Amino acid sequence: MAEISDLASFSKKVYPALREELQKDIAQAGDHNTPELLDMVTYQLGWTGENAGSKAEGKQLRAVLTLLACEAAGGDWKDALPAAAAVELLHNFSLIHDDIEDQGETRRGRPSLWKVWGKAQAINTGDAMFALANMALLNLADTVSTKAALQAGALFHSTCLRLTQGQHLDISFEKEIEIDLETYWKMVGGKTAALLAFCLQVGALAAGTDLEVQAHYRDFGHYLGMSFQVQDDILGIWGEADRTGKSITDDLVTRKKTLPVLYGLAQEKSFYKIWSEEEITPENALQLAEILQSEGGRAYAQSTADRLTDLALEALEKAQTQGTAGEILKITARNLLQRSN
Amino acid sequence: MAEISDLASFSKKVYPALREELQKDIAQAGDHNTPELLDMVTYQLGWTGENAGSKAEGKQLRAVLTLLACEAAGGDWKDALPAAAAVELLHNFSLIHDDIEDQGETRRGRPSLWKVWGKAQAINTGDAMFALANMALLNLADTVSTKAALQAGALFHSTCLRLTQGQHLDISFEKEIEIDLETYWKMVGGKTAALLAFCLQVGALAAGTDLEVQAHYRDFGHYLGMSFQVQDDILGIWGEADRTGKSITDDLVTRKKTLPVLYGLAQEKSFYKIWSEEEITPENALQLAEILQSEGGRAYAQSTADRLTDLALEALEKAQTQGTAGEILKITARNLLQRSN
Repeated sequence: MAEISDLASFSKKVYPALREELQKDIAQAGDHNTPELLDMVTYQLGWTGENAGSKAEGKQLRAVLTLLACEAAGGDWKDALPAAAAVELLHNFSLIHDDIEDQGETRRGRPSLWKVWGKAQAINTGDAMFALANMALLNLADTVSTKAALQAGALFHSTCLRLTQGQHLDISFEKEIEIDLETYWKMVGGKTAALLAFCLQVGALAAGTDLEVQAHYRDFGHYLGMSFQVQDDILGIWGEADRTGKSITDDLVTRKKTLPVLYGLAQEKSFYKIWSEEEITPENALQLAEILQSEGGRAYAQSTADRLTDLALEALEKAQTQGTAGEILKITARNLLQRSN
Repeated sequence: MAEISDLASFSKKVYPALREELQKDIAQAGDHNTPELLDMVTYQLGWTGENAGSKAEGKQLRAVLTLLACEAAGGDWKDALPAAAAVELLHNFSLIHDDIEDQGETRRGRPSLWKVWGKAQAINTGDAMFALANMALLNLADTVSTKAALQAGALFHSTCLRLTQGQHLDISFEKEIEIDLETYWKMVGGKTAALLAFCLQVGALAAGTDLEVQAHYRDFGHYLGMSFQVQDDILGIWGEADRTGKSITDDLVTRKKTLPVLYGLAQEKSFYKIWSEEEITPENALQLAEILQSEGGRAYAQSTADRLTDLALEALEKAQTQGTAGEILKITARNLLQRSN
């Protein structure tokens, strides 16, 4: 990998093979009786429909990290392609259903699948992509031992369950007023960290590493996901002040139960009082963000994110990654987890 | 199995073990952070909530047939328990999503899951049960060889895809006016026959039979499902005249594209004219059913069902079933497929 020095160049190198693998997998969805089912799948993947292309496809970060982990663990990234394709299909299945559950009307700059084809077809297409993900993973049996393929299946299916547990809590959070931190972590663990943990572990598995090494990769993915989510929570309230991206205070107006908010509520001071008694509008949200910051919500979340980042990097250290891929993994982690110090 | 002589007594014998297996599988859904997710799963299974009990549980026919096939193929039905539980979980996942997609408000005499918990949670709980089904199947690795467990996984996942293809066509049928018979068979194959084919094949697989024997069991399940669906189509239009159950002409009023209807439309006679031009009400549906019968729709469907029944019984003959379980399978097939001659 002489010319490959960062995530972008590694991604560019693996995209064609990943797409070929995905094409092979999803071809099974559309025979001549069900061409429209395949149309929906390729729309979701960003390959077809209006504004198809790289923005609609997304960065496929999870799939790329899977391949990178395989290489960093001493394997050939091509051996992890079935797992990377499975991860990408699973992620897209969950996006389809999330968009229906949250009434999300756009996804990667285009109308969500359900906005184009209706909810009934969209729910079912999500199910089809879930099945395709399971089928895609089975191709690991061609690149790893039968035993390792079965182990990967077990990991994958329990990861899927954790995703649904996280989503269950996320939906429940909208109604509940009091949420304890343990439940928050369980939600984040399922929604964000479980799939990343799987990606990193299965990459190492495809490289033929033993369970101990796999566990370090898994932990790295887990803490990477956790830290990433907490930083996303921070950006959702104080984002614009620091960098572009999310609209400032968006998460306050929609009353999202993020980590800074949970911390602020637990203090039972001014933030708690305003949150409990007043409507939050784009007008008063800025002031509320300031109050939350003055009551320690931002500092608490940032120090938590830093601690999780440290844990992620420690796990990566223990994994004893190899070569350029290992370096890229470290740099990627640091970039994703922009530390405050 | 001295005291076991029919499907009912076999079911009664295996229900406790099946329930125990399911309990073990679904326990993974609900830790102390997500007890409500487990509540939804057990509600869907008919174990909890108002009017919980045998009616809400359903007959679990697919799981019972899986166990029966294992025994008929010379195995011990207990070895097929992981597959039977997986099938039951998969079937219930598909019911949850079907009820949302079709706006079905009741299921087994109780409010559908989405009527109780809302659509967002219900979609997600369906996904959770899909994941639980995949996890349940993995336990086959304890009762069969690693290779056979992987084969069962491949069969299961492609069956899931066929279910979604069938459902895709079923939803599409509501809008389309012209449907060819090939597409109808593809729909029925996915909606009804694919899962039954899997049940019978995986039962034989768990008994340790080879692919050739498994194929006979699979074909039996496939034709059983196809014939069953066509008979259901007939009962949906002319049911009450012959036996109790469905309300007569229900399928005509809701304009369901069943086999007799497709046959009638293809004749382009009176039935076609009325279907295309008039509203169908409970008042004129009875007359329309008579017209469809006089134009050959009922006879065509019945002879098709009879032919499919013959194919099912032929496949069962080739499977060379053993002992009492084999006899029960034959009797069950004949009962399910009530022949017209």
